[in-house]
Amino acid sequence: MQAELVFTGNELLLGHVSNSHAVYLGYELAKLGIEVILQTTVGDDWDLMEQVIRGALERSDLVITTGGLGPTTDDITKDVVAAVLELPMVTHEESLDQLRQFFARRGTEMPAICIRQARFPEGAQVLPNHKGTAPGALIETRGKIVVILPGPPRELRAMFETSVRPYLLQIPGRGDVLRTKVLRLTGIPEYAVQEKLKELGVPDNPGLGYLTRPGEVQLRVSAHAPDPVRADRMVEELAGQVAELVGEYIFAVEDEVPEKVVGDLLFRRGLTISVAESCTAGMVAARFTEVPGSSRYFLGGVVVYSNELKTQLVGVPAETLEKYGAVSEQTAEAMARGIRRVTGSDLGLAITGIAGPDGGTPVKPVGLVYVALASDREMQCHRLLLPGVRKAVRIGSVNATFKILKNFLGVDGAASKTATGQR
Amino acid sequence: MQAELVFTGNELLLGHVSNSHAVYLGYELAKLGIEVILQTTVGDDWDLMEQVIRGALERSDLVITTGGLGPTTDDITKDVVAAVLELPMVTHEESLDQLRQFFARRGTEMPAICIRQARFPEGAQVLPNHKGTAPGALIETRGKIVVILPGPPRELRAMFETSVRPYLLQIPGRGDVLRTKVLRLTGIPEYAVQEKLKELGVPDNPGLGYLTRPGEVQLRVSAHAPDPVRADRMVEELAGQVAELVGEYIFAVEDEVPEKVVGDLLFRRGLTISVAESCTAGMVAARFTEVPGSSRYFLGGVVVYSNELKTQLVGVPAETLEKYGAVSEQTAEAMARGIRRVTGSDLGLAITGIAGPDGGTPVKPVGLVYVALASDREMQCHRLLLPGVRKAVRIGSVNATFKILKNFLGVDGAASKTATGQR
Repeated sequence: MQAELVFTGNELLLGHVSNSHAVYLGYELAKLGIEVILQTTVGDDWDLMEQVIRGALERSDLVITTGGLGPTTDDITKDVVAAVLELPMVTHEESLDQLRQFFARRGTEMPAICIRQARFPEGAQVLPNHKGTAPGALIETRGKIVVILPGPPRELRAMFETSVRPYLLQIPGRGDVLRTKVLRLTGIPEYAVQEKLKELGVPDNPGLGYLTRPGEVQLRVSAHAPDPVRADRMVEELAGQVAELVGEYIFAVEDEVPEKVVGDLLFRRGLTISVAESCTAGMVAARFTEVPGSSRYFLGGVVVYSNELKTQLVGVPAETLEKYGAVSEQTAEAMARGIRRVTGSDLGLAITGIAGPDGGTPVKPVGLVYVALASDREMQCHRLLLPGVRKAVRIGSVNATFKILKNFLGVDGAASKTATGQR
Repeated sequence: MQAELVFTGNELLLGHVSNSHAVYLGYELAKLGIEVILQTTVGDDWDLMEQVIRGALERSDLVITTGGLGPTTDDITKDVVAAVLELPMVTHEESLDQLRQFFARRGTEMPAICIRQARFPEGAQVLPNHKGTAPGALIETRGKIVVILPGPPRELRAMFETSVRPYLLQIPGRGDVLRTKVLRLTGIPEYAVQEKLKELGVPDNPGLGYLTRPGEVQLRVSAHAPDPVRADRMVEELAGQVAELVGEYIFAVEDEVPEKVVGDLLFRRGLTISVAESCTAGMVAARFTEVPGSSRYFLGGVVVYSNELKTQLVGVPAETLEKYGAVSEQTAEAMARGIRRVTGSDLGLAITGIAGPDGGTPVKPVGLVYVALASDREMQCHRLLLPGVRKAVRIGSVNATFKILKNFLGVDGAASKTATGQR
């Protein structure tokens, strides 16, 4: 089954906004085993849009349009589709009622212009819009399928999930399904990941894709197969082989949120934490508190960017700073002990490092970061060498810190027992 | 002058990566007065790519392709263009030499397959690639222009700037030039901005575009005119009218980086700052330290998420917290005074607020944020009501905080004199 996507909107042609529909629909259709062969972006121009939709219907079984469902005369997508399919436009009474109710709830009368939002090509199945006022439509005719979706991403995604995916799933004769799993690594550059995975060959199905982001490398393991169980098994098998070779660098899998995972573990174990940050300067605290309810386990912390504050706020001895430097195991451990003492938290976390661009030396290069974790009985200190420049080093430090916490709280049973033992 | 963009690459069709070329080229061409009428994304399929490029050349004066210039047999863009234009492929000796040298510098011989990167449609002007190995090409034939660009964004942008923009600039008969200016607002929801700007009408040229992001509303003022001076004047005129109506909410203009502006002001005035954060929990500190060299004026701070830490680390009296609450003018001011005293900085900054989703009341709703700024002689406290939910409230607080600092240090001369007076 072959599909084409037709995005409408002058703002896309002018480069005002990035086309998130291309990523979302491309990926969702691939997962369903539907091959997208062409994407076209066209403005609010009747002739050109007609030419594009006609061409798409000649080549492909499924055409999905986005945008152009608003009430103004610029919004012509449904009319153009109707013209190409030689269908008259008719009013959908149920949609009209809902529009009237929508405006009534806001205490105003529906502007006459909005009637357009309730008009559809004859025979269309109207797709309800739970996040906005413009319904979509699905038309089956002459062996082809046309799906008309709204432009706002929230509305489009909700409609795809509620109405379009279930419809496409029941069509026989789609292609292989695609399954994927994303492994997120930190503390290692992309070329070193490739080097370590060389022995796996360059598999095609299941396959491996790389994406570098500041502070992380994303590995996308994917497989396609006629049935999802088989595809899942292929993904898991290759993901397992990958984890054996680079598992120590994985800090998150799929859409797992490390600060949420760590927060849940802390809450379940009844532990509190506080943090002393130098090079990350508040980024770890900010990430902890992105999670609503984080005040149950996260007390706060200090940003000790200057040496003076390291001494003053968390009691790092001036001699330690003098003798070993601000970026050293000794300073990191003193910071972790200090913040734990000052705040009275169960765990004390500290990060100090050289983010660059300046301040690196051959012995202590940019990217050298120490992460220390103190509990009542134990002190861990990790020495990291993070690739990239300032932004990548800082984000990489945060990612690595949450990986260290996850290991301490979840995987490393002994350590977590020690920690819980104190309460 | 009408243009079409043809993006090649299966990864775009599969939704693996977002198409940043569409935004970059769309916007750059619009600025040059060239109208993009259609964008097409096609995979590594010869027939379909040929059909797309042929169609584009029939409709438009300028066709720009991206991607498919690598050495493998998947990389067919140049060959397809040559076939459509009925031009033979020839080897470009200079490019071949450069490729050989590239590999020699790495101590290896050029793989035979790489010769493909030095082959071009006959008569093409070869565009050097300063960021990679695959040169691009520019072909003028039969009154049409075809530009062939590489896929990696860094390479594409460098080549566009170095070779393509200068070439397009000298073509007569392009359309109007487009000029734009982006005003970034915080502390006000989009509908309220529209309401305040209602009296300007809905101008078309110069025009106004809206974009909402967490913690901010972006206003894009744009104008097109035959010459850039006139377009600039139109933009400035409308931007001035907008600033008169909503200027108090503007925290940055164009690609101005507020933390850099504030940092430069602090450094020039010889002032240091430290920060006590509650609801933003390290985000202001993290933003300050995104700027390399920020240690010259930013000392550090505390994240006092719990009430206990507010008392313990910055000395907020327990009675103040009890009587007025953690989110109050009194607490914010005590935090600002406290962090200034603890760190010995010239300025003490404090942020406390209700980020949600929980914790709001009718009197103190989600979005209520206090920002206090203490110097030796003065205390400012700002009460903000930020729209949106947790993420938007937190980012909005950070944006508003930098706006307050900018006003204090730059615009409000009296205040900054007070601050500098102390040294």
